[in-house]
Amino acid sequence: MKRYEKLAELIAEMIRGGLLGPGDKAPSVRQASARFGVSPSTVFQAYYLLESRGLVRARERSGYYVCDNVHQQLPELTRTNPVVRSTEVSINELVFSVLDAVGDSDIAPLGAAFPSPDLFPLEKLSRSLNRANRAPQANAGGKNLSPGNELLRQAIARRYMSAGVPVTADEIIITNGALEGLTLALQTLTKPGDTVAIESPGFYAALQLIQLLNLRAVEIPMNPQEGLDLDVLEEALEQHDVRVCWCMTNFQNPLGSSMSESRKRALVALLKSHDIPLIEDDVYAELHFGTAYPQPAKTFDESGLVIHCGSFSKSLAPGYRIGWVMPGRYFEAMRRIKLTTSLSASVPAQLAIADYLQLGQYDRHLRKLRILLEDQQAEMAAAVANYFPCGTKISRPKGGYFLWLELPAEIDSMSLYQRALEEGINFAPGPMFSVSGEYRNCMRLNYGLQRNCIRNAIETLGRLAKQMQGERRNVSEY
Amino acid sequence: MKRYEKLAELIAEMIRGGLLGPGDKAPSVRQASARFGVSPSTVFQAYYLLESRGLVRARERSGYYVCDNVHQQLPELTRTNPVVRSTEVSINELVFSVLDAVGDSDIAPLGAAFPSPDLFPLEKLSRSLNRANRAPQANAGGKNLSPGNELLRQAIARRYMSAGVPVTADEIIITNGALEGLTLALQTLTKPGDTVAIESPGFYAALQLIQLLNLRAVEIPMNPQEGLDLDVLEEALEQHDVRVCWCMTNFQNPLGSSMSESRKRALVALLKSHDIPLIEDDVYAELHFGTAYPQPAKTFDESGLVIHCGSFSKSLAPGYRIGWVMPGRYFEAMRRIKLTTSLSASVPAQLAIADYLQLGQYDRHLRKLRILLEDQQAEMAAAVANYFPCGTKISRPKGGYFLWLELPAEIDSMSLYQRALEEGINFAPGPMFSVSGEYRNCMRLNYGLQRNCIRNAIETLGRLAKQMQGERRNVSEY
Repeated sequence: MKRYEKLAELIAEMIRGGLLGPGDKAPSVRQASARFGVSPSTVFQAYYLLESRGLVRARERSGYYVCDNVHQQLPELTRTNPVVRSTEVSINELVFSVLDAVGDSDIAPLGAAFPSPDLFPLEKLSRSLNRANRAPQANAGGKNLSPGNELLRQAIARRYMSAGVPVTADEIIITNGALEGLTLALQTLTKPGDTVAIESPGFYAALQLIQLLNLRAVEIPMNPQEGLDLDVLEEALEQHDVRVCWCMTNFQNPLGSSMSESRKRALVALLKSHDIPLIEDDVYAELHFGTAYPQPAKTFDESGLVIHCGSFSKSLAPGYRIGWVMPGRYFEAMRRIKLTTSLSASVPAQLAIADYLQLGQYDRHLRKLRILLEDQQAEMAAAVANYFPCGTKISRPKGGYFLWLELPAEIDSMSLYQRALEEGINFAPGPMFSVSGEYRNCMRLNYGLQRNCIRNAIETLGRLAKQMQGERRNVSEY
Repeated sequence: MKRYEKLAELIAEMIRGGLLGPGDKAPSVRQASARFGVSPSTVFQAYYLLESRGLVRARERSGYYVCDNVHQQLPELTRTNPVVRSTEVSINELVFSVLDAVGDSDIAPLGAAFPSPDLFPLEKLSRSLNRANRAPQANAGGKNLSPGNELLRQAIARRYMSAGVPVTADEIIITNGALEGLTLALQTLTKPGDTVAIESPGFYAALQLIQLLNLRAVEIPMNPQEGLDLDVLEEALEQHDVRVCWCMTNFQNPLGSSMSESRKRALVALLKSHDIPLIEDDVYAELHFGTAYPQPAKTFDESGLVIHCGSFSKSLAPGYRIGWVMPGRYFEAMRRIKLTTSLSASVPAQLAIADYLQLGQYDRHLRKLRILLEDQQAEMAAAVANYFPCGTKISRPKGGYFLWLELPAEIDSMSLYQRALEEGINFAPGPMFSVSGEYRNCMRLNYGLQRNCIRNAIETLGRLAKQMQGERRNVSEY
């Protein structure tokens, strides 16, 4: 990170933390230069950067001020309100039609599940791939089969340990991406007919897996800032025969909510008191804005009931398909299911990532990526505020690369989706994230794209949404 | 293949085909030299090779003769005889304890599931890995996600088409090894409680998967030469509510049987008449001895009921975890389950194998590997004949890298297994291959090992088996 980027990050932290509020005057160039021990031109560069991110704006001859709308460009979301009941799941058609459209290269992929590969150090990784696989028989299999390459497991464990999560390499199983980790977790913990408590809105692949494995789902409401509603979860545990709880504790997909540390502790304690395991899907943790790594619930797991899933797919190498699971007390059961269903993760990819992590460049890459994603979130949020119909509400995740929009109730996101496709844009419509077809006026947008396509795509989507709103009104005037 | 190797192969074919019988005089050096248009020294080299493979032996001043025991070193196996009933499956403990011992590097891995990596062109593959992943964003994901990299699917399709199997790249899904292909096939075709018809003895991973997915198994007897007993299969289809049939048509694991073309046709027709899909696990096909590629049952599948699984793990790169499925009419259903459970096979490994196949060296590698495996089978079979107790029966597969032994009834392969482990040798005991604990006096041996460890390991195993036999007899004399 360059000096001006560090300074910009510091000031952004002050704004995020409330030390500088909307409308406040930011430190003058002279003040900042003296206070932070940098040259005036570095301060200017930092302010230019903050300005481009929509955090400050310049007033002529007066200096820089925190933008008024820095916290409030659009109204925030309120708690979601699914019916809390145990249901069978059937959502495949919609999800696959959306996913297939993402693969179409003529389509601006605001519905994509991954950030654009432009944001990843793929060339450095390819060099690691070459270096790590050159030695004779390096990738022959054998010792690299499940639970996986030892150097890689050690490197993953070190990252957790330095963040205060107590875990050793022996507690980690390498998987074909986190998705296989989640599959294995459900296969380990459930039998057909069992009930899973999940977030609503919730990650569509989780819903699909629940369907595939003939399980039932109980949807739990979400607070858009704080995640899972623990009171409702507790009631659900009393009323339904819940076998396992599945959630994303950090930067939840699609809502962007993150549990505070105290809520994570409370979640772990609640489930422990019912002896119910937690599947913690934590694949966005590394994409936190600001400097503080968000602890996973696994940190507070003393009984081995938390199965924690992570991945390199969202922050380093989607195509390598390397994720991991820390299955706690279910380690041996899960290792066996991994051996039974796919034997091992691909060895060349394991070795490549182990090599790349040893170079010590991952954190540098992540710091750059986080700043870029935060910038692009601000840019997309500003564009939504500009172009979308009045009454649109928006999430404000502090990490990851998804925004969740709640449009005025009369706008149907499935119809909007069809029209958007015709204009070369896709997104993830709200009903993908519910077992009961809810969130029809909601949508998930990926802002981890090539920067130049964000504004135009949002302008088009906003125009289409306003058009639909107008048509609806015309119809109801008859 | 060098000239003398080609000649040796030609003469071996004559012996295998019966043109030269046990005790027959092989063509003299002069005759062979003239007939095949090679130098006398080439003929000598060929005979030396055939001698080392136990096919001919020299008689002083008289030339080379086909060995008397070329077809009959040990008695052949007879038809297996499992009870044909629908049962729940529970075999995990045994299988995992055996597989875990294989990973121990102090153990001679006669129980291993793969040939030794020494037999694979790993360095050339690593060069392909490097070359194919060098281009910017080559492995970024996107178009290489399921069904998989197009060049790779085309290369696989070309290999099948040139062997007379009608298939296009669009009908292929790349998987994390054939094991995932089999998992996906069962997930696509069954619901918990369904019944699967399987071979007995049968591949343990199939039995484990059946257990994991809460299915039931009907074991069908096997003819050690011709595979699945189709008459019994037909009865089983009438009597049990069989949902799918699973079998290995070529070089079955563990028995080594191969169905003739007419039996494959009959199998496909029989299942079609009951509208029951066939999962054809055909991972050993490329390891046929001699020159004729064994057609898969898929060749005769006109209704799309055959789900054919293949892999590069047994003949090229176990650690890459690249296999494929040709799911016939179930393509879309299986593609979706693949997307839902693990999204995609690792892209770097897909690209590497696509590149390697384009080099055109795979067939050369396979030709060498086949000859080597055939040699080593002969060597192991000869050693078994030498060292094992009288009454031991043996399989005679015409491909692959497994031998199946039936020991005298009083020898328990589980006790033998424990003693062998203490002497640094493992193998796959018979009960691993049965849902009902049968085959207690049987064992599977991997001869695709480093050559120098075969004879010693067999000598030790034979000694232990004879010891156990002696003890048993002493006990029964009391």
